[in-house]
Amino acid sequence: MLPSHSPKNNQSDFQWKLTCSPRAKSTFNPIRNFVQNMSVKPNPEKTPIRLSVGDPTEFGNLPIPQQAVQQLSENILSGKYNGYTLSFGSLEARKAIADYFSSSNYYPIQPQDVLLTCGTAGAIELVLSALGDEGKNVLVPKPGFPLFQTIANSLGMKTKAYHLKQEDNWQVDLADIVSQIDHQTVAIIVNNPSNPCGSVYTKEHLQDIVNLAEKCKIPIIADEVYANMCFDGVPFYSVASQSPHVPILSLGSISKLFAAPGWRLGWVIVHDRHDILRNAGIIQCLHQLTMRMLVPSSPIQSVIPILFSEQCRKEQLRIMEELQHNANTAYPLLESIPGLRCTKPQGAMYMFIHLDLNVLAFENDVEFTETLWKEESVFVIPGSCFGWNGAVRIVLNAPSCVLTEACSRLQSFCERHSRHG
Amino acid sequence: MLPSHSPKNNQSDFQWKLTCSPRAKSTFNPIRNFVQNMSVKPNPEKTPIRLSVGDPTEFGNLPIPQQAVQQLSENILSGKYNGYTLSFGSLEARKAIADYFSSSNYYPIQPQDVLLTCGTAGAIELVLSALGDEGKNVLVPKPGFPLFQTIANSLGMKTKAYHLKQEDNWQVDLADIVSQIDHQTVAIIVNNPSNPCGSVYTKEHLQDIVNLAEKCKIPIIADEVYANMCFDGVPFYSVASQSPHVPILSLGSISKLFAAPGWRLGWVIVHDRHDILRNAGIIQCLHQLTMRMLVPSSPIQSVIPILFSEQCRKEQLRIMEELQHNANTAYPLLESIPGLRCTKPQGAMYMFIHLDLNVLAFENDVEFTETLWKEESVFVIPGSCFGWNGAVRIVLNAPSCVLTEACSRLQSFCERHSRHG
Repeated sequence: MLPSHSPKNNQSDFQWKLTCSPRAKSTFNPIRNFVQNMSVKPNPEKTPIRLSVGDPTEFGNLPIPQQAVQQLSENILSGKYNGYTLSFGSLEARKAIADYFSSSNYYPIQPQDVLLTCGTAGAIELVLSALGDEGKNVLVPKPGFPLFQTIANSLGMKTKAYHLKQEDNWQVDLADIVSQIDHQTVAIIVNNPSNPCGSVYTKEHLQDIVNLAEKCKIPIIADEVYANMCFDGVPFYSVASQSPHVPILSLGSISKLFAAPGWRLGWVIVHDRHDILRNAGIIQCLHQLTMRMLVPSSPIQSVIPILFSEQCRKEQLRIMEELQHNANTAYPLLESIPGLRCTKPQGAMYMFIHLDLNVLAFENDVEFTETLWKEESVFVIPGSCFGWNGAVRIVLNAPSCVLTEACSRLQSFCERHSRHG
Repeated sequence: MLPSHSPKNNQSDFQWKLTCSPRAKSTFNPIRNFVQNMSVKPNPEKTPIRLSVGDPTEFGNLPIPQQAVQQLSENILSGKYNGYTLSFGSLEARKAIADYFSSSNYYPIQPQDVLLTCGTAGAIELVLSALGDEGKNVLVPKPGFPLFQTIANSLGMKTKAYHLKQEDNWQVDLADIVSQIDHQTVAIIVNNPSNPCGSVYTKEHLQDIVNLAEKCKIPIIADEVYANMCFDGVPFYSVASQSPHVPILSLGSISKLFAAPGWRLGWVIVHDRHDILRNAGIIQCLHQLTMRMLVPSSPIQSVIPILFSEQCRKEQLRIMEELQHNANTAYPLLESIPGLRCTKPQGAMYMFIHLDLNVLAFENDVEFTETLWKEESVFVIPGSCFGWNGAVRIVLNAPSCVLTEACSRLQSFCERHSRHG
């Protein structure tokens, strides 16, 4: 095993020929990469306004319900929540989640239907790992949250994008889904309310989707991280509320609902009334995979019951009121800017804004984004990070006055960079 | 896509033919599986004593340093640590870890050499994902902590076990490592101090190991979760302290060192002075993989600097004193029991006890363990969970009097079940 001859220098490095995993190499998160590696500097004359990462804590105006914070602080001092929990999460936390989501489901959910994960990322990683591996694929919406692709690729799986119809309030192009399904397809990912679109699907549209899944016999992964986060009385229906038959793995977290992304607690709710997943061994696989112990921290698990209590849910409504107010503030301001075209957000915490590059003098959304940051110190995410060129996403988390200022800067920016002007 | 004919019952289930991922199916954690699915009931006459899971919080006698607990509680109330951090962890936390481990390393460690993970499990998952995928293998010690195999299998990788020499204080059988290396081998895992053996390697033995890795040009994953957890003045040397050349990925966590396993914070320290990992793209892959956001919670990250402060490290010594006292209490008691053969623990928090099944009337270690739980309400882990039949592991975390009681129950248990008795 010794090198058979010695190069002149650096003998010890001789013959080190390592390679990284091809799967790891193809693991790429465009949003994180864009944000963490942004080299353009903002305009030093203007206070930076970051409407980039979907972090509700960014501006301090959307607090975690106070009672839960208080309880967490006390639980830490008690010393009772420092050990390991069950690998799929404590019974109390799973029960609270099961109870809360039972009302928006076809059947009541039991604690054993819930598995806790390390944020939504952990939930995505868990369900994709259970359903597929090398060579399999999942269908993802376009535009859509890129983390599904990031994690699928890290597992050797592929994503195939299906079209959302901008002209039709970002509804799913059902025919496109059908055309994308092949023998390697293990799941359809449905995201509602939508990141980045801010759209919320009607009951009828969800029925069309589950009927399609039923016909094609493909399970649904429902990304419902923004469940119940709707504006102006638009109702939220879970995918699982529309079918007792189709196997559905619903993903959620406290990151947005309770404004606690740094707490890293998410979950998978398994809807499998007809034991289709169970008979395929998928439920058992999900449980076995949790035994890798990539689980949320125990103190955080301990406050899930209080977070879902009536008192905290009432406080959560204040978060929703502020997001709704922001949506209603930003929409008319941005809609009126020549070169931008918006869809009014109905939920989640985003606006996805189409850039008319016939009007705006930019090559693409990345150039628009970098120049906006450089000149106006407003940070947004280019649509290409969501698989949709020629758009940008803004987060509606800033206080109203800050958001208004950002809109005003966007207006002068777009006017200054108009091809017509 | 519709079924072409309808079965009489349950039309909707027709044609659902799902399969789970073969990788997920082969994901199996023997310890968690044994503990979470134990169906044997303990003796209702005797208080259960669980010396099974390596959880230092089990008995409440090994507290997390108080100043860190206090600080965490305050940080929660401050509302400042609820958002996302960088995907590889906050600078402050990485700096504290880099500083602490710089002294036990060949070169000073920089914050950029550290990546935070969701517990040690996250660290294992991260490094294995970066180094290999489908078809690759890593060498693991036997007996050894089974989570490497669990996670490797979930990634489509294999483990190949190399022998530890019980007769030689559980030192590595170097010849066996060499014989196991093949063209698919991407890393050698070295665990020191050892779980389950409780052994601590000498400087000379570590030099032999790194020299072997250098000759074979295989990087080392150093499982150093029990770094600095040694008894009776036995010194700890990190693997990286013995070579400036060999690329080493050292894994650690606060789980055992600071008795906080439920906090789920671990790390990878990259030792790559000659840019061997960097040139292979592995450093970049590690960073890309963190962007999947399977990261530790932000409030926990916020107290890493205080945990590694002088004050907390002083408090940590009390944990070590208690573990050392327990090792010195349990060893002579167990060593004297006919049918058991022990190696005196030098570190970590375990004793690995050989069962002489010529003396003890049991078929195997699982039968021994289940009967012990049923009759004496003492829960241990069978050696077969660590790839080593005919042994059991006990955790040294119980208060001295509880541990003494467990030893006394073990003594009468072994006497009662002696083939000679």
